[in-house]
Amino acid sequence: MSTAPADTLTQLRDLTRAFAAERDWQQFHTPKNLAMALSVEVAELAEHFQWLPTGAPEELDERKREGIRHELADVLLYLVQLADRTDVDLRAAALEKLALNAEKYPVAQVRGDARKYDEY
Amino acid sequence: MSTAPADTLTQLRDLTRAFAAERDWQQFHTPKNLAMALSVEVAELAEHFQWLPTGAPEELDERKREGIRHELADVLLYLVQLADRTDVDLRAAALEKLALNAEKYPVAQVRGDARKYDEY
Amino acid sequence: MSTAPADTLTQLRDLTRAFAAERDWQQFHTPKNLAMALSVEVAELAEHFQWLPTGAPEELDERKREGIRHELADVLLYLVQLADRTDVDLRAAALEKLALNAEKYPVAQVRGDARKYDEY
Amino acid sequence: MSTAPADTLTQLRDLTRAFAAERDWQQFHTPKNLAMALSVEVAELAEHFQWLPTGAPEELDERKREGIRHELADVLLYLVQLADRTDVDLRAAALEKLALNAEKYPVAQVRGDARKYDEY
Repeated sequence: MSTAPADTLTQLRDLTRAFAAERDWQQFHTPKNLAMALSVEVAELAEHFQWLPTGAPEELDERKREGIRHELADVLLYLVQLADRTDVDLRAAALEKLALNAEKYPVAQVRGDARKYDEY
Repeated sequence: MSTAPADTLTQLRDLTRAFAAERDWQQFHTPKNLAMALSVEVAELAEHFQWLPTGAPEELDERKREGIRHELADVLLYLVQLADRTDVDLRAAALEKLALNAEKYPVAQVRGDARKYDEY
Repeated sequence: MSTAPADTLTQLRDLTRAFAAERDWQQFHTPKNLAMALSVEVAELAEHFQWLPTGAPEELDERKREGIRHELADVLLYLVQLADRTDVDLRAAALEKLALNAEKYPVAQVRGDARKYDEY
Repeated sequence: MSTAPADTLTQLRDLTRAFAAERDWQQFHTPKNLAMALSVEVAELAEHFQWLPTGAPEELDERKREGIRHELADVLLYLVQLADRTDVDLRAAALEKLALNAEKYPVAQVRGDARKYDEY
């Protein structure tokens, strides 16, 4: 009998599965629809930042921070559901991507080369 | 002395912090810029689904699945970084949101009411 | 003295310029902020479609159609403003792009090849 | 013998209709799919701005400006097609929206009130 707590991503996967099943909402949750829903939530998140001068943390007041927190949660919940419906292990995929990025952007080559950051 | 593995979200937060620090990239990672980057990655994810008839799982071939897997990873990595820069505990925020959603959409009221799904 | 009516895109450019100037809002309208605002409006548009089975026209009721109409207007208004701030002639750019697309997707090669539509 | 040039929006509607018809692509162009395609193009536009310090015009070099021009064109082309498929007169909708916005944000009330811009 395990005493280890479930990993958050696994726990959220199980909770969102149950949530949708209880409401008979799986029928709406095609990968395509979940991808659209995810992009809508991300835009609601971006909306909090759109008119800020630079978007640095000190420009965020309490009201914005609370809104951002809720939208971040929505994004994570749809992300977990989309990964579940497409049989993707989010943890493995993210660790693999980090390893790929480390190869793609070697420290020695990109460090301090701010000007060209988005050209890599 | 703990032997428990770190939770994935904590682990990814630490790894992305180190990744950005080694490259001196934190200067680009304002919350606003991370929110934009997140929305760009989500669109790259959505792109895989845009012309599918319904977007059901059986319409996804291997090539698409591999692309989707990589984009899901990118979305998670930026999400974790944005949460980190805005001091949001993603796990707590997601669990809280699920509880709020459970109240907002009571099973007895919404179950099987597909037609009005998006009007709640 | 011309009696020709102004082209819609020119007219909207002039009207949005005046609108922002009267309110002293040009200071917020950096190209970057307008690009974010545009993506937020597009997401509000996409939201109307996200849970539809296929998104065919007959799935759109009157309420949705009215919402879509307003969001399409918002998208056009931000698009015109972003083009204005980046000195892009939208008409010329669109006609040029159509010509490029015609070369890129020759009728003889792509017609009826639905299966591979998104791989071109 | 025509005496007035067609309005750009009408012209682009006719050209995109012919373009899709020649390639038998209307089958993919449900309003939902066009809305997704539009959001993907807008993200490709946003991508040019994502790491800029403030996104002011002077931060845009020639390479970026050319990319932005092409993406603005793509956005307009999908916007016109989506409006066409949902029977929306873009010109009328935009003029109506501007009138609504003028009422919603009276000059006397919002002018110079930069701090609260996004709270209206």
